[in-house]
Amino acid sequence: MIKENERAKAGEGLPWDEVLERLPFNADGLIPAIAQEHGTGEVLMMAWMNRESLEETVATGRVCYFSRSRGKLWRKGESSGQVQHLVELRLDCDGDTLLMQVRQDGPACHTGRRSCFYNALRGGRVVVTDEPLIPPEELYR
Amino acid sequence: MIKENERAKAGEGLPWDEVLERLPFNADGLIPAIAQEHGTGEVLMMAWMNRESLEETVATGRVCYFSRSRGKLWRKGESSGQVQHLVELRLDCDGDTLLMQVRQDGPACHTGRRSCFYNALRGGRVVVTDEPLIPPEELYR
Repeated sequence: MIKENERAKAGEGLPWDEVLERLPFNADGLIPAIAQEHGTGEVLMMAWMNRESLEETVATGRVCYFSRSRGKLWRKGESSGQVQHLVELRLDCDGDTLLMQVRQDGPACHTGRRSCFYNALRGGRVVVTDEPLIPPEELYR
Repeated sequence: MIKENERAKAGEGLPWDEVLERLPFNADGLIPAIAQEHGTGEVLMMAWMNRESLEETVATGRVCYFSRSRGKLWRKGESSGQVQHLVELRLDCDGDTLLMQVRQDGPACHTGRRSCFYNALRGGRVVVTDEPLIPPEELYR
């Protein structure tokens, strides 16, 4: 929680290490993290971080998530080469969601598309909005 | 899950009612939903939806969340007047996160700021980036 910042003026703030101690990780020790391309504003993906992955991301400037399916740290791009470079980390008013402005190398999505949000509800159908930048079989080989 | 869309071409898709039946709501019956201002790309907030709030949002074009703290539907703007109008609903590759492009009336944040993501990690501190558009005591009276 970052309650003190609610009534703070622009430029005022709290030490990161104090905020980190109080972040409301959920029962699984995770917090949702949104990645947005810095510059264009495109939302690329949403994934989860544990405290270790968040600390590594801040220390290295290279985004590291926690993979719920694999149960371990997931250094974005470690198998695909499509790295996310952290430009700025933001937290919401409750401190329970992270927004990362990043520079994404190539596609963020495992399908080879730039963004994971390529399914749009239009006219009663969920339609694909984009083609892959890279065929997925070329991403993971 | 929207596995079939992974290899679909742009413009192809699935009926919404079929996708809705298969959405992976979590153990609490919820799915995370990101609101992004259509046009500027600014990420405004992240909150949660249950199936009922999602169906209402799609039916009315007015964003309705599920409030975890209050345990009930939360029609965004019902007490503050700051309504979110849905422009386009998107789903990610796994179908487990929603991205809503919206037109936000006034501030999205309960602090009176335009976006909830006004806390930025800069130089070892979490600093406030924006002043409220409206004082919070004027939002809820």
